[in-house]
Amino acid sequence: MYKRIPGTKDILPEEALLWQKLEETARNIFSLFGYKEIRVPIIEEASLFNRSLGEGTEIVQKQMFLIKHQHDTYALRPEGTAPIVRSYIENSLDKTTGFIKLYYIGPMFRLERPQKGRLRQFHHIGCEAIGSIDPALDVEVISLAENLLKAFSIDGYKIKINSLGCPKDKKELTKILQGRLKDKLPKLCEDCRSRFKTNILRILDCKDEKCREVVRGLDIQDSHLCEDCKAHFAKVKGGLGALNINFEVAPHLVRGLDYYTGTVFEITHEDLGAQDAIGAGGRYNSLVKELGGPDAGAIGFAFGVERLTLVTKFAAQSSKKLVYLVSLGESAKKEGLKILDNLRKNGIICDTDYEGKSLKGAMRKADDLGAKAVLILGDDELKNNVVTLKNMVSGEQKQVNPEELIKDLENITKSA
Amino acid sequence: MYKRIPGTKDILPEEALLWQKLEETARNIFSLFGYKEIRVPIIEEASLFNRSLGEGTEIVQKQMFLIKHQHDTYALRPEGTAPIVRSYIENSLDKTTGFIKLYYIGPMFRLERPQKGRLRQFHHIGCEAIGSIDPALDVEVISLAENLLKAFSIDGYKIKINSLGCPKDKKELTKILQGRLKDKLPKLCEDCRSRFKTNILRILDCKDEKCREVVRGLDIQDSHLCEDCKAHFAKVKGGLGALNINFEVAPHLVRGLDYYTGTVFEITHEDLGAQDAIGAGGRYNSLVKELGGPDAGAIGFAFGVERLTLVTKFAAQSSKKLVYLVSLGESAKKEGLKILDNLRKNGIICDTDYEGKSLKGAMRKADDLGAKAVLILGDDELKNNVVTLKNMVSGEQKQVNPEELIKDLENITKSA
Repeated sequence: MYKRIPGTKDILPEEALLWQKLEETARNIFSLFGYKEIRVPIIEEASLFNRSLGEGTEIVQKQMFLIKHQHDTYALRPEGTAPIVRSYIENSLDKTTGFIKLYYIGPMFRLERPQKGRLRQFHHIGCEAIGSIDPALDVEVISLAENLLKAFSIDGYKIKINSLGCPKDKKELTKILQGRLKDKLPKLCEDCRSRFKTNILRILDCKDEKCREVVRGLDIQDSHLCEDCKAHFAKVKGGLGALNINFEVAPHLVRGLDYYTGTVFEITHEDLGAQDAIGAGGRYNSLVKELGGPDAGAIGFAFGVERLTLVTKFAAQSSKKLVYLVSLGESAKKEGLKILDNLRKNGIICDTDYEGKSLKGAMRKADDLGAKAVLILGDDELKNNVVTLKNMVSGEQKQVNPEELIKDLENITKSA
Repeated sequence: MYKRIPGTKDILPEEALLWQKLEETARNIFSLFGYKEIRVPIIEEASLFNRSLGEGTEIVQKQMFLIKHQHDTYALRPEGTAPIVRSYIENSLDKTTGFIKLYYIGPMFRLERPQKGRLRQFHHIGCEAIGSIDPALDVEVISLAENLLKAFSIDGYKIKINSLGCPKDKKELTKILQGRLKDKLPKLCEDCRSRFKTNILRILDCKDEKCREVVRGLDIQDSHLCEDCKAHFAKVKGGLGALNINFEVAPHLVRGLDYYTGTVFEITHEDLGAQDAIGAGGRYNSLVKELGGPDAGAIGFAFGVERLTLVTKFAAQSSKKLVYLVSLGESAKKEGLKILDNLRKNGIICDTDYEGKSLKGAMRKADDLGAKAVLILGDDELKNNVVTLKNMVSGEQKQVNPEELIKDLENITKSA
């Protein structure tokens, strides 16, 4: 028997309803904020991610699904920002549109060790606003994230923000950390000992208790920030306050990817365990230029859809408006196809039995499916040119002329 | 500069609107027919496809994107049927639901030589009905395909159907072809000469003119079909006639995958060139059992979304209801964030400038974006606690109290 590969999931119909509702809600909120959808490929040159996320990151070092093809190495995208920036540049959107707000919904891939809360194929709902360094945009983007959460019927979340500063400030922070950590390496976890060389900022938000204690002792605040970056961050905090958005400044929040500069943020949820981030993002003011594009400041974020499904209070239900037809015998079956065709042309959701069930079996199936009305078509009905209509809520049963059927069914399903 | 890899596409916002409309329409029609969405992973064991599609098929021999991981070989799914059947079996849907109607929307991957009409990442809108051998289901499924096309605002299509018969009949057809073709190999194209050994049925629908001439001379009709399969096919044709669906019986239509049995069909469009199929499908009554599940007849089909976008008459347009805010100066900017926040809370689509444009530049941007109204907020407005509202359709301009703003804007955007 074939099995799905570890770290992947089948989303069956009942759960798919919840995904549809989250996605539809996201589209509405993005639209209110002037965001438009972009769909970038799932496979890209692996080097795009090496360059954007950084050679030292865990994603690039260990977690990319790679495909060798002739002399090329492709990767299943591990995140959405790099492909969208690639697309922005390749399609000259800077020239045709200038500042642009884009959103995306789709699968991402990371070769994680399968564990609770970590999938190898997972899904992001995210956005990117490219072409502005205005701190008001940071405020709007964080407000957008909160508006999405509210629309998703999620509470119990916490918004944490920080500023990494410009590339020069990040280098300064790196130097500070190298100085303060070099004597403390033996106290760090194994991962962090190797991060010291490859990606030292990540040590700041390591979840290992040993590392957290060391980090607490470092007293990292905002001393690495230049005046411009301090002023930018002050405006972001002021704007969030003006919109009454609750946030917490978290000086140890770094997000592990090379492309982040300036404002970074993370949204956690109290109901989740060790993997408590439901979304995160930040500015990446140098990435567009680094990938060969113009000098364009940008900011974005993404929510993990699987995590959203764990904390949303949405209760998605399938339509309760089903009409179920039971045809008895060959001629009724053929006539039944025409009735179904006509109902559907009139927008009525309907179905019938294709398993050769008895009348009793078909009635049970209709009940299981939650049908609001059942139509019965047998030899008698055919002879008299009527259909027997049973209202499954009231139990009432009557014979109806085909011409009156639509109206009767609309009444029954409308009140459902 | 990074480029997308050959055979992949960026779907930019304007085109994405069309995709959204096709998908939303498909969801509505599927729902009318009682289909529910399933989402299966994009990566599966490669062996699932080898077994389902057949070792001799071109997809398995040449077109799979393969990922080696430790001792496993994964594949990017080249089609949706095999993963859905895998999921049906693995999740015991035969036991919990029995007969089930499923639809799916998503990317598929085949390593084709990049050429017109062929992408390496393309997209399917498709469905599978699993657990019935009733010919009325074949009729409903083909009717569903036609209803989708009509709802997509597509005409100029042609529906071709055929029956391959049960596995025994397919073997019979193979034997007939081996006999009639063995002396004609030199007249066939190179691909078909190798298909003679690996996948002889495919020769019947080869598009090469040389092969078509040979095939025309073979006089293949329905002599390979057993009585049961002939009766089934007769009922399918009768049912399609009863629903007034135009179709053509095409005895050379085979669809190249091993899993097909009985009814197969293909929908072509007159506006497309050599690659004129916009959708195809058929029965696969043995596949569920072959993959380790119960003996469950099934049928499905898929449309290629890229091809649909070429022939649909849909004209998808972005919302024409945008309100654009121009804030002049620091204080107005902060106040502006609150106004936008309030408009969005009231369901009004709005945006502002984040590029530091002048009043004139911002007005031009609002016009480019098709804004129906512009709000201007400067020092004067702040002092008097008003906003200047310009109706971009009538050109009328007035000062409005913040409390009246929502109502005024609703009136302007409603009439847009």
